[in-house]
Amino acid sequence: MATMGQSTRHPFDPLSGEEIRKAAQVSRTMFPGRTLDFRAVSLQEPRKEEMLAFLEAQRQQEHGGEKSGGAMLSPPARVARVQLIVKPDAPAAAAPGAGQGEMGGGAGSGTADGQAKSRYMLYELHVDLASETVVTSEHLPGRHSFIDPLYMRQAEKACAQDARVLAEIARLEMPAGSTVVIEPWAYGTDGMNDMAERTTMCYFYARMVENPDANYYAYPLDLCAEVSEDLRVTQVYRLPSGTHDTIKHEGDTRTFDTRKIHPLADSEYHPALRPEPPRTTTKPYIVSQPEGPSFSLTADSNCVEWEKWSFHVGFNYREGLTLHDIRYDSRPIFYRLSLAEMFVPYADPRAPYPRKAAFDLGSDGAGVCANNLQLGCDCLGVIKYFDFHHVTPEGEPLRMDNVVCLHEQDDGILWKHTNPRTGHAVVARARILVLQTIVTVSNYEYVFAFHFSQDAGVSYEVRATGILSTAPLDLDEQEVPPWGTVVAPGVLAPYHQHLFCLRIDPMVDGVANTLVVEESVALPRTSAAQPRPDEGKEQHKVISNPLGVGYVTTSKHIEHEAGLDLDASRNRVFKIVNEAVVNPITRTPVGYKLQPSYSQMLLADPDSFHARRSEFAEHAVWVTRYLDDELWPAGRWTMQSAGGEGIKSVIEARRRAQAKKAGGAGERVEEEEDMTAVRNKDIVVWHTFGSTHNPRIEDWPVMPQERMTVGLKPANFFRGNPAIDVAPATRAGNGSILYSGKEKGGELAGMR
Amino acid sequence: MATMGQSTRHPFDPLSGEEIRKAAQVSRTMFPGRTLDFRAVSLQEPRKEEMLAFLEAQRQQEHGGEKSGGAMLSPPARVARVQLIVKPDAPAAAAPGAGQGEMGGGAGSGTADGQAKSRYMLYELHVDLASETVVTSEHLPGRHSFIDPLYMRQAEKACAQDARVLAEIARLEMPAGSTVVIEPWAYGTDGMNDMAERTTMCYFYARMVENPDANYYAYPLDLCAEVSEDLRVTQVYRLPSGTHDTIKHEGDTRTFDTRKIHPLADSEYHPALRPEPPRTTTKPYIVSQPEGPSFSLTADSNCVEWEKWSFHVGFNYREGLTLHDIRYDSRPIFYRLSLAEMFVPYADPRAPYPRKAAFDLGSDGAGVCANNLQLGCDCLGVIKYFDFHHVTPEGEPLRMDNVVCLHEQDDGILWKHTNPRTGHAVVARARILVLQTIVTVSNYEYVFAFHFSQDAGVSYEVRATGILSTAPLDLDEQEVPPWGTVVAPGVLAPYHQHLFCLRIDPMVDGVANTLVVEESVALPRTSAAQPRPDEGKEQHKVISNPLGVGYVTTSKHIEHEAGLDLDASRNRVFKIVNEAVVNPITRTPVGYKLQPSYSQMLLADPDSFHARRSEFAEHAVWVTRYLDDELWPAGRWTMQSAGGEGIKSVIEARRRAQAKKAGGAGERVEEEEDMTAVRNKDIVVWHTFGSTHNPRIEDWPVMPQERMTVGLKPANFFRGNPAIDVAPATRAGNGSILYSGKEKGGELAGMR
Repeated sequence: MATMGQSTRHPFDPLSGEEIRKAAQVSRTMFPGRTLDFRAVSLQEPRKEEMLAFLEAQRQQEHGGEKSGGAMLSPPARVARVQLIVKPDAPAAAAPGAGQGEMGGGAGSGTADGQAKSRYMLYELHVDLASETVVTSEHLPGRHSFIDPLYMRQAEKACAQDARVLAEIARLEMPAGSTVVIEPWAYGTDGMNDMAERTTMCYFYARMVENPDANYYAYPLDLCAEVSEDLRVTQVYRLPSGTHDTIKHEGDTRTFDTRKIHPLADSEYHPALRPEPPRTTTKPYIVSQPEGPSFSLTADSNCVEWEKWSFHVGFNYREGLTLHDIRYDSRPIFYRLSLAEMFVPYADPRAPYPRKAAFDLGSDGAGVCANNLQLGCDCLGVIKYFDFHHVTPEGEPLRMDNVVCLHEQDDGILWKHTNPRTGHAVVARARILVLQTIVTVSNYEYVFAFHFSQDAGVSYEVRATGILSTAPLDLDEQEVPPWGTVVAPGVLAPYHQHLFCLRIDPMVDGVANTLVVEESVALPRTSAAQPRPDEGKEQHKVISNPLGVGYVTTSKHIEHEAGLDLDASRNRVFKIVNEAVVNPITRTPVGYKLQPSYSQMLLADPDSFHARRSEFAEHAVWVTRYLDDELWPAGRWTMQSAGGEGIKSVIEARRRAQAKKAGGAGERVEEEEDMTAVRNKDIVVWHTFGSTHNPRIEDWPVMPQERMTVGLKPANFFRGNPAIDVAPATRAGNGSILYSGKEKGGELAGMR
Repeated sequence: MATMGQSTRHPFDPLSGEEIRKAAQVSRTMFPGRTLDFRAVSLQEPRKEEMLAFLEAQRQQEHGGEKSGGAMLSPPARVARVQLIVKPDAPAAAAPGAGQGEMGGGAGSGTADGQAKSRYMLYELHVDLASETVVTSEHLPGRHSFIDPLYMRQAEKACAQDARVLAEIARLEMPAGSTVVIEPWAYGTDGMNDMAERTTMCYFYARMVENPDANYYAYPLDLCAEVSEDLRVTQVYRLPSGTHDTIKHEGDTRTFDTRKIHPLADSEYHPALRPEPPRTTTKPYIVSQPEGPSFSLTADSNCVEWEKWSFHVGFNYREGLTLHDIRYDSRPIFYRLSLAEMFVPYADPRAPYPRKAAFDLGSDGAGVCANNLQLGCDCLGVIKYFDFHHVTPEGEPLRMDNVVCLHEQDDGILWKHTNPRTGHAVVARARILVLQTIVTVSNYEYVFAFHFSQDAGVSYEVRATGILSTAPLDLDEQEVPPWGTVVAPGVLAPYHQHLFCLRIDPMVDGVANTLVVEESVALPRTSAAQPRPDEGKEQHKVISNPLGVGYVTTSKHIEHEAGLDLDASRNRVFKIVNEAVVNPITRTPVGYKLQPSYSQMLLADPDSFHARRSEFAEHAVWVTRYLDDELWPAGRWTMQSAGGEGIKSVIEARRRAQAKKAGGAGERVEEEEDMTAVRNKDIVVWHTFGSTHNPRIEDWPVMPQERMTVGLKPANFFRGNPAIDVAPATRAGNGSILYSGKEKGGELAGMR
């Protein structure tokens, strides 16, 4: 297509395999003769300003090309972001260019002592794919790449071959037929270790049967090892196993307690290992779509259209699924929607457990960990899958199949009214469009889904499932540690939090938007006789309210970047509005409102590493000024981060910079724009939500999904119900059937 | 069946038509020669003590009859509760037995002045159906029956024939072809009117087209009338139409403002009236269940079994759907679940709008207003409907078809784990069982549904839909009243709250249960060197927490009846536990936890009629001692109630009585049981939730469903995931299909 220049990829499309190969080739020219470990090659998304101009030009061409005068804007350049590690040439050679040791942090980098020089050099390059040139190159000493399943398998192998590890395992005298399983974890900063090199924690489990699908989390061993970047085991020690004990070091003589061995029924989820066959009472439930689905896709890119919605599907190694240029009936609503980060800190205070604190995006990669969604297992109906290309360590494209699925679901009643006078009912059923991706981070699974609705709502649903992370517990321990639940003999499932941050980059009828905090407040009661004069409260004139039933809403327009909290008791509603576009009927600005998920924020001490590293987890709603590439609320580099680089620090830094500017220029600061201002600006709204997950035994051995939902709904954006034109439901249309009682072998006998 | 004596109905089954007829016949013998208006005839549920003994005996007979020694307990007697009005014989005759004028209230009956004697006598009788005798009879002066659609139609007719009303309508000079529609409302107490007689408010609307399904709420008229019990129009006046104006009386000369007439597209929901045909983009979505549903029903009663669940379906004129004796895998969990009340107060402080404050159960009847759920319109798949018998004013059974539906739904992923080492995924899809009833209260619809899940959860979902209640607004009014949204020219949709109260009568492994409030709290941080001695907080020993990451849960056992609040910031969880049954693995009491719906409580002034009448709306969670017939958190009689008879007053009264007993007996109160004690007792938990509904224009002309969900989930009740035995999903089982892109006429053209 001529308008696209050399590439046929849409600017929002993820990199193709060929683009990844080319980016790696170009990157290699920077490091002749060196061994490279390609960590990620992903799309550097175009600058928003450039992209908006392109989208606008494209739209004009489609809807009235003649107006644009024939000259078509070129699409933004395709740029690859390449993350790679330059490996050391020889075991102890000094790494050229490394050794500055800066953390790039600031407020939080209080433990930067002991910054030894890493011989593994982390780089990020930007490669222009058309010109095949490296446009930027950044060496990142003190930063660490995420750990992926491939690297985890290598760490496992290193552990399994280490003499000290083998000696410790031998000392445990494991029962015959059992197999030890090694579980690597990203290292959560605790200030107790050198952060110059990437370190991997390895926990040990056992399975008691030969089947490799056995649930080894049922047998946590009190053993632990640390593995260095170059895959050497640097430490081996025993884990604590009582409430008050401390870490045990080598030389502990206790062996595996065989009293912990329990029936398969209590710990196995795999049907091949369950002692009884599955229940047969659940009868088949088939969804058919004889005329196909209601969505359509472009042939050559990831643009989806469905029920007046249009958007682009993106995907990258870190966030996984992203959505772009989201419109309803051609009106722009969101520029980008994504899960921006998540943090999973554990409540167990005993060393080394404070290191169990995972950033599953920044340190593991939601895209890298995405499941291949097997047809017919994860969804019903007609399903479209999206593939994605990651990169091998050697720089070759690695195709990941079926990482996102797209399908429709019925969602019950959309709207209904029965006219009581005529008895006529009109009912429309809701159809939703689901974009789903599922991530496995070792033991745990997250089902992430965007739901689009016909009434112009978008919701983001997270289902947590998978297997609890477990720790060993002495059977002779009288007291259950108060930060965990015993789920099997000698198996403690520690409390933990899941804190997600949804990044909402709005474009409500344009990019200049405002966050408004609306509350519902009682009107002051007035005397029965007559209104009191001049006693205005809440910015309202005194309104006669003699019976005390009146209430109104108050609105506060957020002027500067901030973190804000929820308050259901005041019906606090966060609206993203476009003050320049007034709804002609309601006479109020058009907007979308957030339906938050009410959650406890981070429990860790405000001055802990946890708190400093996961700043977004302090408040439920944040609003910031839009800046290209400002995507990470816990900072760009989370792996072994020291903190102080998240959303709160960024806001504070801009506030300080602005104060300094204001101070320096006296009262005249208008010349340079105040980058802390967020009213009628291009803004980003971040919503932190999640669960304080204190396990139930019902979450074991595999957890029934725990659902969290966030909604985004129009609020005086349209002229009326956007789903008013959905055709009413009919029996002919959906083929439902009356229960006759004959469907089964027989009804229940007799009277119950 | 011999064990049931004369009746074949199960003690929980609603009354049959024949039982209703018999109850009416027996009731008539009490009032020879009088004209009776039968309001409701419903099951007087057996006393719990008696019922539990019966259920236990029945269970023993079924599961090991020989143990029970052969002697089978008789089922509790079938008793009908009959609510009727004895009509006056002659226009002004004194009503025998009436005139005591007591309100039965207490704290809140501050406006009992002007209690004129009503000539309409309300009675409630209990009729034993086997012996055909009236066992109790209660005359209820000062109390008022609910108003039902039949009575509303009579009030409308009275209005339409009233000369003053006709004169006012004539004065409006309505456009040719328009039709005035009269909308009766239950009268919400405002202290401004005599409460001796039931009064009905009539609001006026117009439709501009001939079709009787036109949305007349689009044309609210500034006219209002009040109708007495004997269907006389007692007052006619004009409504306010600006922010600061007061009620207008007869003589206002303004006519209908024809500038308000707007296009059909802006206000009509009925497809016959929409100017454009419905969207055709939504393709058919068919659910088939080739082997039938997974549920079964007894042939002769309302007992349902599904996926290890069993329960009884009840229904009555007031609550609508109720559930009884709810068990999972035979273990008792709940004795009864029901929506107990709801309150819908409006925020408009101008007279007469404070009277818009509806108790949709107590004053309208969720059962009476239940929809006939048309096959294939309200649900998909194989559907079982339940019918119900109400009563005609003459005492004949009135069959209401299809008031409850029962069907299954797919609910996405239930649990999943992918073993990262083997790559093997096991995924189970969730099936839920839905019991749904839909209520139309004039303009508004509520979709109420209980969802049972395979992992032993129950949730209660409310979807609000239907049409907003509207009020007239002068087009020349510059200022939009701050308690409403303009949804069409001259149409104000006032703010209002929907406050629901779910009554949870638990039986967690038995009736002696305790409400526990659990919170997640950070452990105090200890110095890095060593734990500080003796500085226990939150009842915990000092635990070493040098990194500040530790957190634990605290538990408070509620000892006395109380109203409690939610607090997401502390992850406050309400658990109903059985302290006598300890989970052998977790070593904690078995329990179920409430997943509340976070909501703003009542906004009205604490001393307003609204607050005094809807006491349950003050706190989100209440716990009370179980007492037979204590079912109504806003009092048994809500129609024109003065307040002070709800859950808060009941708790306070018992507390006062207990204090008095304690005071009288010195320190020795053990002899008589403390009825305010709720620890290890038969308790009831009430959850108040809802929405502060400040309309969006998107809620017009018919509102897309707004969903609220409350969950009840096992918390260390089982030995593990109760859904672990659900068979993994397979493609063969669910027939899902890969999207080929050929399903539609073509893909989207070109690149987007």
